[in-house]
Amino acid sequence: MNTIIRVNTRTREIKREPTPKAMERWGGRGLIAHILLNEVPPTCHPVGRKNKLIFASGLLADTPITTSGQMSVGGKSPLTGGVKECNVGGFAAKRIANLGIKAIIIEDVPKEPTTDVLVVTAEKVFLDPAPELKGKLVSETIQLLRKKYGKKIGIFCIGPAGEMMMYGAGIASPDDNDVQIRYAARGGLGAIAGSKGIKAVVVDDSGSTYKPPYYDRELLQKASKWLTDALLADPKTENRHLYGTPAILALANSVGLLPTRNFSQGQFELVENITGEHIREEILRRGGIGKAGTPCVPGCVIQCSNVVPDPEGKKKIVASVQYENIVLLGSNCGIGNLDDIAELNNLCNEVGVDAIETGAAIGVAMEAGVIKFGDAEGAKNLIREIGKGTYLGRILGHGAVITGRLLGVRRVPAIKNQAIPAYDPRALKGNGVTYVSSPMGADHTAGNAFETLKTQDPLSPVGQVAVSKRLQLRAALLDSCGVCLFIRPPFTKNPEKWCDIFKGRYGWDMTVRDVMSIGLDTILTEREFNKRAGVSEEFYPIPEFMEEEPLPPTNAVFDVPMEEITTMWEKDVVLDQF
Amino acid sequence: MNTIIRVNTRTREIKREPTPKAMERWGGRGLIAHILLNEVPPTCHPVGRKNKLIFASGLLADTPITTSGQMSVGGKSPLTGGVKECNVGGFAAKRIANLGIKAIIIEDVPKEPTTDVLVVTAEKVFLDPAPELKGKLVSETIQLLRKKYGKKIGIFCIGPAGEMMMYGAGIASPDDNDVQIRYAARGGLGAIAGSKGIKAVVVDDSGSTYKPPYYDRELLQKASKWLTDALLADPKTENRHLYGTPAILALANSVGLLPTRNFSQGQFELVENITGEHIREEILRRGGIGKAGTPCVPGCVIQCSNVVPDPEGKKKIVASVQYENIVLLGSNCGIGNLDDIAELNNLCNEVGVDAIETGAAIGVAMEAGVIKFGDAEGAKNLIREIGKGTYLGRILGHGAVITGRLLGVRRVPAIKNQAIPAYDPRALKGNGVTYVSSPMGADHTAGNAFETLKTQDPLSPVGQVAVSKRLQLRAALLDSCGVCLFIRPPFTKNPEKWCDIFKGRYGWDMTVRDVMSIGLDTILTEREFNKRAGVSEEFYPIPEFMEEEPLPPTNAVFDVPMEEITTMWEKDVVLDQF
Repeated sequence: MNTIIRVNTRTREIKREPTPKAMERWGGRGLIAHILLNEVPPTCHPVGRKNKLIFASGLLADTPITTSGQMSVGGKSPLTGGVKECNVGGFAAKRIANLGIKAIIIEDVPKEPTTDVLVVTAEKVFLDPAPELKGKLVSETIQLLRKKYGKKIGIFCIGPAGEMMMYGAGIASPDDNDVQIRYAARGGLGAIAGSKGIKAVVVDDSGSTYKPPYYDRELLQKASKWLTDALLADPKTENRHLYGTPAILALANSVGLLPTRNFSQGQFELVENITGEHIREEILRRGGIGKAGTPCVPGCVIQCSNVVPDPEGKKKIVASVQYENIVLLGSNCGIGNLDDIAELNNLCNEVGVDAIETGAAIGVAMEAGVIKFGDAEGAKNLIREIGKGTYLGRILGHGAVITGRLLGVRRVPAIKNQAIPAYDPRALKGNGVTYVSSPMGADHTAGNAFETLKTQDPLSPVGQVAVSKRLQLRAALLDSCGVCLFIRPPFTKNPEKWCDIFKGRYGWDMTVRDVMSIGLDTILTEREFNKRAGVSEEFYPIPEFMEEEPLPPTNAVFDVPMEEITTMWEKDVVLDQF
Repeated sequence: MNTIIRVNTRTREIKREPTPKAMERWGGRGLIAHILLNEVPPTCHPVGRKNKLIFASGLLADTPITTSGQMSVGGKSPLTGGVKECNVGGFAAKRIANLGIKAIIIEDVPKEPTTDVLVVTAEKVFLDPAPELKGKLVSETIQLLRKKYGKKIGIFCIGPAGEMMMYGAGIASPDDNDVQIRYAARGGLGAIAGSKGIKAVVVDDSGSTYKPPYYDRELLQKASKWLTDALLADPKTENRHLYGTPAILALANSVGLLPTRNFSQGQFELVENITGEHIREEILRRGGIGKAGTPCVPGCVIQCSNVVPDPEGKKKIVASVQYENIVLLGSNCGIGNLDDIAELNNLCNEVGVDAIETGAAIGVAMEAGVIKFGDAEGAKNLIREIGKGTYLGRILGHGAVITGRLLGVRRVPAIKNQAIPAYDPRALKGNGVTYVSSPMGADHTAGNAFETLKTQDPLSPVGQVAVSKRLQLRAALLDSCGVCLFIRPPFTKNPEKWCDIFKGRYGWDMTVRDVMSIGLDTILTEREFNKRAGVSEEFYPIPEFMEEEPLPPTNAVFDVPMEEITTMWEKDVVLDQF
């Protein structure tokens, strides 16, 4: 990927630069970290002139490696004030890679508010004024974009929440059939797009002349085939394919880490209605357009997404309904009906907000008494208010911390101003360590200890730092490659396969240690940006209520010592395993 | 002052401790800084269990030194996240000193919301449940307190904004006639009181047996008399007595530093209606209960406060209307009518919010189009909404930064999340340095360069750091003594008089350097707390628009280099002059 595109939204100037030497070894999340550190003043206003919105291809974006259609989207996070990268599926990333584009860097803000579409094709890149898209919901936006720019385009776009620069806003990315709506959800990236007047990015790769310069095509294809075969042979893959991310819900409930009613309980009495097993069964029962086990990026062999249809199987409610969203919008709000949760999720997707952040914000609003726990219709109306930009909607659309502050609620599940996802850190302490220490703020994708439930006592404070560190390194590597976290199992047994992949694609001679160093470099670069931005982990401990309020039924509190967390990258960094 | 009172609002336990040796040399602002650094986790939730609300007597609180009835109120600021001390007049501080109390430290938060009055008398200190005060405006609260606890009590109390834990809430302190309502306004201290269920503190010093143990009564009295005489002989004192703080308004306008229409201009076309001269003239013309030149603390010889009556001179609109409030609620909102401004100020006092923060928030809301610039009735309604706790009211009641964020306005005049007061830093760059570097956030009282207009080019970036440093040291000393900033002129010529005062009161043998070290120790202690809290100045530069948007009519931008500001306390600290 030989091209960097720079878009200045004030002068409307577009520059196409050859990828500088220094950037060649960076990709995805790591590339974003370096661009931020080199180009963006860490203390800048996140929706001001100096922040940048970055779309970065993963290191393996132009390879046949399965799941390598994940796009890294990033910038200085409006929500956390620190570095932010989101990995998102959809069908746009592969097209960007097909055009040989390593990164699109969107700079400055327009003098007066605008509504533009950034159009990226093989021939040209330009800002296309699109006042007709102003205020449009995500599905309407996508429809209008297809009408204007054709069926076979990749799309990123924002909803009204992003346009209003709400810090809970994300960036949507659909598949080519506009069924799956994936989200670069966390940290408020949609607000950055909104600040720059970028309602959408459309990518048309037809006529591209870019040919990925594989160093050793055969080696790459061999490694690619090994990965596909190994994944298909792995029982985890089948489980994910059948039940998707909700596969873990029943277990999360049984060990008592399922956030319920604003993180006041770890188990939910209506859990059977929202397990992965139940969802699959229900989707299959309804039939029609419903799907269990469908991909979110082209070429994925896992295919863990679903399509939840209405009870008649005729109309999509949402695709995909995932573990995080089910929990934050469901049990965390005391809501135990699948259709309600699917509709809540769909509403988040339509107005363009992170379902995790919004679910947490609604949970806090419920604790404040705005509506009652369990009030699904009330919750739907709250999300509609976000889309309309009412004052209450603006409060909620800025996330859980602002909602708690303005409504007078102290029990706010958030770290670095970002809502804690669907694993209560009291009952899964490895995740607590990740939430506190990750440069991303509270983010399960940065290092999810759920997989260690069998090997590591989740309630003990001992050993969690080592667990989190290993997982964070791994996540940072995968995010920099532009591949899904779910391809990890085969590599844990055969980490040396990474070396084949990089050799095949780039000709790099790497040891496993060198490969893992990509993850470490990413994290250390992000930490440096955050340090300069004033959002180092020592300033953002676990929420106080989680230190003192026992979580039923385990009655655990979070008790991993802060000193252990703040010093974790100073020593014992293991790089020779994946 | 030999006693420290500790109040635990969860256990309702009250402790009375002798002042520890280590605290003896600290007072007021300096004492608060040390208590915060020693006792409050810097990263704690500002309205959570670990923050403390501190009332600290100044070092000279129990002396006859004029103006020494200023109370220091502090805690970890909800608004800035860092150290916060407000100096406030009123008639309570002297009573606290008369009881020999060096500090009242209010700790923890109740398990369930309560409405309590902390009653402090010579015999006992106790928490008195007062559900009847819940939600009451400040004037109603004061009336009810007088009815229950007697006429001759000192009072601190909060309005509904503080009870709702709004980060723009302050703590009110009236005189004994309930005419002057003074405010520990900045940084959200009212929210801390609200979080602890403390609606009011009442102080009855009758029957006190405390006798201040003056080391050399005669020396102290001589110095006290010298100060009074020197102040009365100083032409600045007369000017302040006649025109109050608004005395400077015409000059501020003529040099173009008067914040106007959300800091978009430095001059206001309706300025003649709001100058100190006009206000005095109008008050005298109306007669009746109007007053120009009345004290805010007992024993003040400057008496710079006023009472603005209605046009018939019958009813108080507000007392006192001051420069800051006139500018933020007036010109900054495009409002140029004295009665409107007085009423806006009164409404802030009644609901219990900082008029500076609220004026700035309304200016931002006007820029967002919520109401038009100049809409005085609209502005009054916005403040009423704060008192009612509507969603818009909650947004505004949390200050300018939250208002800008939630309404999508980037031009927000604030540093460390606290609104910039009534001197645009582009046209008075010394104040810009203070705003950025003071541990208090944007706060003119921390080091106001307005007095240097004749000796220092306010538009030049050169030399401003030295100016600000000198002024900050001086302010920190005065704030630690519990005296008014306006007593400074005689000391600039005779700094050695400070030594007499401390010798007379405490028997300390001090040089001028030792005395100034009180200021330096205060600032360095505060900086250390802020560093640990993550709110050091390098993370909070001047608002970006002030670096790029020229301020008419001078067309200045703020251009003091940030490196100069962030390193200012590392060298060239001058301690041998006042």
